[in-house]
Amino acid sequence: MSVLVVGSMALDTVETPFGKVENILGGSASYFSLAASNFTDVNVVAVVGNDFPEEHIQLLESHDIKLDGVKREEGETFRWVGHYGYDLSEAKTLETHLNVFETFNPVLPDHYKDIDIVFLANIDPEIQYEVLQQVKKPKLVACDTMNFWIESKPEQLKKLLGHVDILMINDAETRELSGEPIIVKAARKIMDLGPKILIVKRGEYGALMFSKDGIFYAPSYPLEEVFDPTGAGDTFAGGFMGYVASHDINNVNDYKRAVIYGSVLASFTVEDFSVNRLAKLTKDEIEARYLAFMNLSNIE
Amino acid sequence: MSVLVVGSMALDTVETPFGKVENILGGSASYFSLAASNFTDVNVVAVVGNDFPEEHIQLLESHDIKLDGVKREEGETFRWVGHYGYDLSEAKTLETHLNVFETFNPVLPDHYKDIDIVFLANIDPEIQYEVLQQVKKPKLVACDTMNFWIESKPEQLKKLLGHVDILMINDAETRELSGEPIIVKAARKIMDLGPKILIVKRGEYGALMFSKDGIFYAPSYPLEEVFDPTGAGDTFAGGFMGYVASHDINNVNDYKRAVIYGSVLASFTVEDFSVNRLAKLTKDEIEARYLAFMNLSNIE
Repeated sequence: MSVLVVGSMALDTVETPFGKVENILGGSASYFSLAASNFTDVNVVAVVGNDFPEEHIQLLESHDIKLDGVKREEGETFRWVGHYGYDLSEAKTLETHLNVFETFNPVLPDHYKDIDIVFLANIDPEIQYEVLQQVKKPKLVACDTMNFWIESKPEQLKKLLGHVDILMINDAETRELSGEPIIVKAARKIMDLGPKILIVKRGEYGALMFSKDGIFYAPSYPLEEVFDPTGAGDTFAGGFMGYVASHDINNVNDYKRAVIYGSVLASFTVEDFSVNRLAKLTKDEIEARYLAFMNLSNIE
Repeated sequence: MSVLVVGSMALDTVETPFGKVENILGGSASYFSLAASNFTDVNVVAVVGNDFPEEHIQLLESHDIKLDGVKREEGETFRWVGHYGYDLSEAKTLETHLNVFETFNPVLPDHYKDIDIVFLANIDPEIQYEVLQQVKKPKLVACDTMNFWIESKPEQLKKLLGHVDILMINDAETRELSGEPIIVKAARKIMDLGPKILIVKRGEYGALMFSKDGIFYAPSYPLEEVFDPTGAGDTFAGGFMGYVASHDINNVNDYKRAVIYGSVLASFTVEDFSVNRLAKLTKDEIEARYLAFMNLSNIE
């Protein structure tokens, strides 16, 4: 099955202890779609300005990513400027320029409306809801969100969550959304809002998946080279949703495998700036690291 | 085989968001020995003041813990006052009173000197070394340390590590001891100092074990009730060393099982203040949680 993703396409300026890059390809939809494209067809809904470089379009299209839903508007592309310290666990946002994203009013091309698998990346929950309304019969809907929306649009977010099957957020967002510090109790409260599955992303500490079948803990692979964590969460979502869309999902074990594939893809993203590592990834590299992940917590 | 532990026996005052307790049993040797006593004989080397309550001695002895190496001296017992915020990940030390611990000069009883398995809890590396010198033919030596010793006695610590098989420290200590931010590279540098195994304790995020056979990631069990993390690391060490001492250890898979048992024991400690939960733990509870841990990262 194909995947629909709505999210940002951005030009990022990022500084880490290992270097600095300016106006490179970023945005949740970019990371998500490159990751998911290893498994299935991806259809993007987003907006870019007339300054968005043609080479980025070509890169995405060279991975068979469909950009019919990407509008090019007068003005500048969404820009983000961020900085990471040595622990690399959290970005400090220095600047955000929404630009053409400020008036983003996504209208799905007709041939997108029959797509079964939908990922609503971290944007305004009202826009996430509008996009979802345009999909005729979604079979599986996943979404991301962040502290900004939890605080500024809690009711709109809760309305959306009533229509979402899988929510993917981090530890702090899980606690804030539920108002509950103990993560197990927080998960239960969030699943009462709608999602049947909650995936708590913990960066270098892996990911937790909560479902009616219990808790699954996927480790993160300790890497030799960590350059830039930007996009790791969206890449995780892309690997996860790509795997789900391209396999016959029968039970929780299939979702567990999807979590591992999400972690695998994310582990490549952080090895280089922007989508550089994702863009040149091979199927063999993905499978080799999948095995390494499986071995990481294996006892013979 | 029996285990020898040298460490602190303390009276702790601890405040967490869930309550406050004063002058309760604490100290690395107390947590370690209660955890290890589920598996094997434990022989403690420590010092207490003449204010140390007889009920704590009785509690430890009721678990068959040997206290022949515990000196009772004139003066007050080591006291620690600590506070935890809502995230519970790191204690804020409010007061430390070394008291009788300040002049602690451990002398091993003769029948301790033939013990094979040694755990040197987090104390002055010079004292750790002195204790180790008194053991005739140690087969396996593990130790803990902390930022204070890494900064104040780096040479004494490095001398000790040349005689240590297993080092158990946390993420930040791993980075500080090695001077290397990437954990995989940090582990390699530390293993060059002597330890054949490095266990990086990550609290609620589990534990990583590095050895010549690669990396093992043991998850931490997401708990419904977390009251007080004090002693979790020492309990982990007790579960790990107790398992190792009581089993025929042939390869890395046996050490992996020991890591899981360490995590299992630690997961009980944090459910209540002091050693309260450890003190009433049953073998059945331990085995049930071991299975829960194994299931946590299992894919069928």
